[in-house]
Amino acid sequence: MNDVSFIGCNASFEKSKVVLIGAPFDGTVSNRPGTRFAPNRSRLESDAIETYSPYQDEDIEFKQIHDKGDIEIPHGNTEKVLSGIQKAIEEITIYKKKPLLIGGEHLVSYPAIMALYKRYPDLHIIHFDAHTDLRQTLYGQKYSHATVMRRVTDILGDHILFQFGIRSGLKEEFEYAKKHQYIEIASANTITSIIEKLQDKPVYISLDIDVLDPSIMPGTGTPEAGGLTYKELLEALLTLKGLKVVGADIVELSPDYDHSNASTAVAATLVRELLLLLS
Amino acid sequence: MNDVSFIGCNASFEKSKVVLIGAPFDGTVSNRPGTRFAPNRSRLESDAIETYSPYQDEDIEFKQIHDKGDIEIPHGNTEKVLSGIQKAIEEITIYKKKPLLIGGEHLVSYPAIMALYKRYPDLHIIHFDAHTDLRQTLYGQKYSHATVMRRVTDILGDHILFQFGIRSGLKEEFEYAKKHQYIEIASANTITSIIEKLQDKPVYISLDIDVLDPSIMPGTGTPEAGGLTYKELLEALLTLKGLKVVGADIVELSPDYDHSNASTAVAATLVRELLLLLS
Amino acid sequence: MNDVSFIGCNASFEKSKVVLIGAPFDGTVSNRPGTRFAPNRSRLESDAIETYSPYQDEDIEFKQIHDKGDIEIPHGNTEKVLSGIQKAIEEITIYKKKPLLIGGEHLVSYPAIMALYKRYPDLHIIHFDAHTDLRQTLYGQKYSHATVMRRVTDILGDHILFQFGIRSGLKEEFEYAKKHQYIEIASANTITSIIEKLQDKPVYISLDIDVLDPSIMPGTGTPEAGGLTYKELLEALLTLKGLKVVGADIVELSPDYDHSNASTAVAATLVRELLLLLS
Amino acid sequence: MNDVSFIGCNASFEKSKVVLIGAPFDGTVSNRPGTRFAPNRSRLESDAIETYSPYQDEDIEFKQIHDKGDIEIPHGNTEKVLSGIQKAIEEITIYKKKPLLIGGEHLVSYPAIMALYKRYPDLHIIHFDAHTDLRQTLYGQKYSHATVMRRVTDILGDHILFQFGIRSGLKEEFEYAKKHQYIEIASANTITSIIEKLQDKPVYISLDIDVLDPSIMPGTGTPEAGGLTYKELLEALLTLKGLKVVGADIVELSPDYDHSNASTAVAATLVRELLLLLS
Amino acid sequence: MNDVSFIGCNASFEKSKVVLIGAPFDGTVSNRPGTRFAPNRSRLESDAIETYSPYQDEDIEFKQIHDKGDIEIPHGNTEKVLSGIQKAIEEITIYKKKPLLIGGEHLVSYPAIMALYKRYPDLHIIHFDAHTDLRQTLYGQKYSHATVMRRVTDILGDHILFQFGIRSGLKEEFEYAKKHQYIEIASANTITSIIEKLQDKPVYISLDIDVLDPSIMPGTGTPEAGGLTYKELLEALLTLKGLKVVGADIVELSPDYDHSNASTAVAATLVRELLLLLS
Amino acid sequence: MNDVSFIGCNASFEKSKVVLIGAPFDGTVSNRPGTRFAPNRSRLESDAIETYSPYQDEDIEFKQIHDKGDIEIPHGNTEKVLSGIQKAIEEITIYKKKPLLIGGEHLVSYPAIMALYKRYPDLHIIHFDAHTDLRQTLYGQKYSHATVMRRVTDILGDHILFQFGIRSGLKEEFEYAKKHQYIEIASANTITSIIEKLQDKPVYISLDIDVLDPSIMPGTGTPEAGGLTYKELLEALLTLKGLKVVGADIVELSPDYDHSNASTAVAATLVRELLLLLS
Repeated sequence: MNDVSFIGCNASFEKSKVVLIGAPFDGTVSNRPGTRFAPNRSRLESDAIETYSPYQDEDIEFKQIHDKGDIEIPHGNTEKVLSGIQKAIEEITIYKKKPLLIGGEHLVSYPAIMALYKRYPDLHIIHFDAHTDLRQTLYGQKYSHATVMRRVTDILGDHILFQFGIRSGLKEEFEYAKKHQYIEIASANTITSIIEKLQDKPVYISLDIDVLDPSIMPGTGTPEAGGLTYKELLEALLTLKGLKVVGADIVELSPDYDHSNASTAVAATLVRELLLLLS
Repeated sequence: MNDVSFIGCNASFEKSKVVLIGAPFDGTVSNRPGTRFAPNRSRLESDAIETYSPYQDEDIEFKQIHDKGDIEIPHGNTEKVLSGIQKAIEEITIYKKKPLLIGGEHLVSYPAIMALYKRYPDLHIIHFDAHTDLRQTLYGQKYSHATVMRRVTDILGDHILFQFGIRSGLKEEFEYAKKHQYIEIASANTITSIIEKLQDKPVYISLDIDVLDPSIMPGTGTPEAGGLTYKELLEALLTLKGLKVVGADIVELSPDYDHSNASTAVAATLVRELLLLLS
Repeated sequence: MNDVSFIGCNASFEKSKVVLIGAPFDGTVSNRPGTRFAPNRSRLESDAIETYSPYQDEDIEFKQIHDKGDIEIPHGNTEKVLSGIQKAIEEITIYKKKPLLIGGEHLVSYPAIMALYKRYPDLHIIHFDAHTDLRQTLYGQKYSHATVMRRVTDILGDHILFQFGIRSGLKEEFEYAKKHQYIEIASANTITSIIEKLQDKPVYISLDIDVLDPSIMPGTGTPEAGGLTYKELLEALLTLKGLKVVGADIVELSPDYDHSNASTAVAATLVRELLLLLS
Repeated sequence: MNDVSFIGCNASFEKSKVVLIGAPFDGTVSNRPGTRFAPNRSRLESDAIETYSPYQDEDIEFKQIHDKGDIEIPHGNTEKVLSGIQKAIEEITIYKKKPLLIGGEHLVSYPAIMALYKRYPDLHIIHFDAHTDLRQTLYGQKYSHATVMRRVTDILGDHILFQFGIRSGLKEEFEYAKKHQYIEIASANTITSIIEKLQDKPVYISLDIDVLDPSIMPGTGTPEAGGLTYKELLEALLTLKGLKVVGADIVELSPDYDHSNASTAVAATLVRELLLLLS
Repeated sequence: MNDVSFIGCNASFEKSKVVLIGAPFDGTVSNRPGTRFAPNRSRLESDAIETYSPYQDEDIEFKQIHDKGDIEIPHGNTEKVLSGIQKAIEEITIYKKKPLLIGGEHLVSYPAIMALYKRYPDLHIIHFDAHTDLRQTLYGQKYSHATVMRRVTDILGDHILFQFGIRSGLKEEFEYAKKHQYIEIASANTITSIIEKLQDKPVYISLDIDVLDPSIMPGTGTPEAGGLTYKELLEALLTLKGLKVVGADIVELSPDYDHSNASTAVAATLVRELLLLLS
Repeated sequence: MNDVSFIGCNASFEKSKVVLIGAPFDGTVSNRPGTRFAPNRSRLESDAIETYSPYQDEDIEFKQIHDKGDIEIPHGNTEKVLSGIQKAIEEITIYKKKPLLIGGEHLVSYPAIMALYKRYPDLHIIHFDAHTDLRQTLYGQKYSHATVMRRVTDILGDHILFQFGIRSGLKEEFEYAKKHQYIEIASANTITSIIEKLQDKPVYISLDIDVLDPSIMPGTGTPEAGGLTYKELLEALLTLKGLKVVGADIVELSPDYDHSNASTAVAATLVRELLLLLS
């Protein structure tokens, strides 16, 4: 397999503070697969963007960032995939480095969050998504990209999950979110209101790319109308700058469904902004 | 032909209050055809959305909605197509049920409106579109997707047509609309101003999907820049909730022109919202 | 989920002799996924072909064929998927009906063959494919679309597998095939030579659609140059007409990778020909 | 509407012996529309081929060929479309010029053949197609792209239609063709056998582009596996060189369904070869 | 080569005040090529829009506009391409007509600006773009689509370049722009603030179409997230109506990267609005 | 820029006998650009094929092959591009290694052949192509992908160029080829007849991928109907096995024009076969 690297991620693992890593797994998705191609396509597309962000006035080239490549995925064996991801993330967090995980489907967030939770028992999750991902099961399976955040809350408890942009789910998922966690429907305008609450808490950002409107992100498994514009998402992310962000992921890009490749280009700039946020 | 059904439309015809029906006709379009595929593709894509709408906090599964399938279209015989559609809609309205017609091209609205007009002589039309559709003729033809609303006003008269989002047409079409009907150019901000006026009137909603911006709706025959965002359209539709809406259509989706299929996914959620609006 | 049926498969299960069934699973593929869409897309596309085959001068409409729909797939749980498929096929063979399984990826052949093997201990496999599928493991996994025929031979033994069209694999896979089974590289010219040998034996046909040249079948996960033309494949299949074919599958169509949809149309005619072959 | 011309068709109408003309109509097709785009796309794509044919060792630039542009199509009014085409072809044949008509769908052949039949009562038709096109009606309509050749034989009688490459139709269509006309299934190997029979007869060539295999011609409304290769079709066409060909058409190219545009490039070279055949 | 014309541009060169001209060159682009197809595709697509603009309440059909076709491009010889473009623009400006140049890539703006600069030594540039285009060199080359505005400022000096929508570049490019020219990052809200300053100055508008968000303009070489909506861009352009605009260009549309063709339709309406702005 | 390598090309430069190198240049093409993406896409796609060739029963992994990456291309400066390629090839031939150059457009063959000609003054060229490439100039330019073989014969003289599969060009190009070189139109059946003639001569193979039929190779700039099948091309190449092949190229793959990616997969297997041929 070819080793490709995200632009500007030139630090050695030893010297790095932030580590980029890919989890090309899409085994539990209910609709269109193909997110396995997201990590490497994002890296290749990164050649077409700049390392400098005019939004944050910073350059990833001058941060200590390492691209560790992809976790090996034994397709067809979900259990082994999940334990492999958790182990890979722990190998990053053990050195007090911060991981940015590129999925793959959303279930990859679960082992990543578990790895960070071991280190930060007070972990809080900021979750951008079109879908609640709070089902108890899907097709009788407990572990799925549609149940991932429910599994997280099974372990981390109530009031640790802050959801933004959500606009699709069962009625009971919305009710659970309203009662036990935090949810803003179809937008992220209230994100400033949670900043104070999360001050000094370890925070993990889980960015399901379908939180964006399908106009800007058709390249995803289950596009859902009524999402955030890129500028709204970027503004929401930059709001988090003062927080103690200890890890993040960006998931559900399915490059082949956007033949213009613009979806992947958009994801690449989000990776850059997240890397700066973690640095 | 395979019978596929829109998600959650499980009521029998007898028990239903709202009836979904397709008119896969695209015989008069001047530009790119392909809207014939819209009804069934929308139904198939509906499997990927939820029956619950977080916007209206309601679920189509618990409303009495029947999916009657598609009207048979004798391609090449426009006259017979139009009379077939009118007859099919009358078979719905005769039982005091409300139709939601999925086109097909915009000309299919004409026989649907005629069917409703027979029942509701005071019928008013709320029309979302990029194009005026008010030509007298196209290529010498009176009945066309570019003349459909002119034909409607020929019968229903002045001040019964309320157009929103319009941004393409001949100068004389705009002048006619301003003088004889109601028109808002390129947006739908004034829709609240007509609510009072239409209170207690029977209202038909004709939604040409190209009222949406091509960014979110490339899958249509004649995409026209400068359209509504999905949220703007949704907000406009929800404004109509208090009105006496007696029927509706959603037309001009041409699925094959959006290879990401996101256009069809967007249309499917609009169908859901319209079904709830009619319920 | 919508129930769509293959054209002309109108018999009830009880009256049927041949049963069409789908297994929309693509969880172990190493390259491009998406074969989960093959069963329903083939059914929908079947509306555009005829039920009558001029090649066999027969019509599926007048055979007793039932379309049983799709087997439920708990995505992410390969073991459960495989046992579910085996059970579903056994529910067909128990009534002495013949199954035609539409994948999904090639691993779905394994449980189908196991079901038939229980009934026919002398089962022989005729296998059309671009790839040997004879690896011992892939990514450390025993059950994969790249190992499927090796797993079959683990159980059924030597000299029961007849491979045609093969043109990709490890050197050791080719050596195994030559020594323990039967293989023809990149073509199917010798198929007549095995007819006599298989006379009166129960035969299962496993048709990986990538045996066709990528020119006619780009819509597959791993297109491999140098394949059969459609006419060569059809001729090879018709050669098998006198054999005692007790079941068959057609796998690895990945519809979204051929935007012209011609790949799916081609697959639909192959399904028709296989149904007639089984009748 | 922009006037574009096929490469090398530079003669004035007056001086021309062969006249190219387009009929961008697709109103009766049962499956995918879009053949309306074929005439102009073929002209535009002709800039990428050469005017010289190495197969015939001749150059269209030095023949007297005129490109008369497109016939105006009143979309939605089939009757008027057909009479318009017939009139346009008669305006060519009245001057003893030979028309090459680019469709549009196959129904456009009907008025073209009628125009030529008026001039040549002994007209014979050589018909390349995947489909028999011999239905009595389609959706209750007599005039359709699936009935066109039956309508032709209604007027011209028995034993005037010679079909090649046919591989899809109802059983009764094949039976009619075998009994009353001439048919070769899925190939054109016997074409030399009809040459003598047609010596000195006026011959019209109707080339439905789906006679080609979908591998080389995915850009058509109803691709059907098992067709001719380009070389087989070219060879068959060149066989006709000695005949008295008085007109021809090339129909059913649907450019948007082949995103590589290769289908249109293939059609453009066929137009060139047909123009030379008519010269 | 076929001569196609933009809709409504029917004046002779002699009578025209505004001249449309194409420069189908894409030889220096660093990422995806294909802008060479923009001029003719925009013209062809113009058949699907109207000549009347409801935004400006004017119609290009009634202005004196000539479409001069495309400048011949000797692909591979950049120097000759640039001098050819400059000569072609001078042949327009010598008659005091205003050019609207359709690229091609952004480097074509350089010779156009040079031609206008000869006539208007006090020329100012309003530049809409996602990228700064202010590099000193690219791949060691001075003339490139990434250096074009730096080359312009080499000649025209400081404080003559007003950049809007910019969101990608090297840190030093942004610093140069802030210090020596004018730049607004990722939006065009401050454009009204420069109107007074530019009153009575000759102004050239250079519109790189990637200033638009990739949602509405995926069909470009290097899509960059976070751009203007169509309405924002249109509003910014209309703001310029009172200025003395002496020429303009619209560059970097790469039609083949947007398979829906919506990008080209969007560009066609922008051409119309620019033509009205120049009239 | 990311360094990706072709599968199985693991030898160091020092130990290698064959060197793969890319020239991602497409600056002189007259039709669709995009061949610049061919080298890296072929490398990435090589992960989906095997290193073992069942046709040659050999494995590139066990040959001494080095992938030297891409030559830097200063886009827009053709002269510098050509000298850069020649220098890069000379750095391979100086060590008596054999180059396999992946284009890019066909003009890249010129400097490669010049480099080999310096070392082998008796060099002969075997050229597979759809087009003659023997023009004197294109758009007034001497160096172009349409003139490349004429330029080669300017230097190497008569009777050194052997062309196969050619089916497009000016009449005078064909005449030149027949008189001064060797040409077989639209096929490669006579290739065995030249083997004896070329025994012991240094031979360079230039493979323009459009020699293949567009059915199997739509992903090229100028697809031309009537080409070789993959098997015909492969057989022709294997015929050359006994010759003293000192270098080769494979050019004109334009990956983005085949959305199925099958064209790139086909090219990747041809690269493997050429590498084995050179080993």
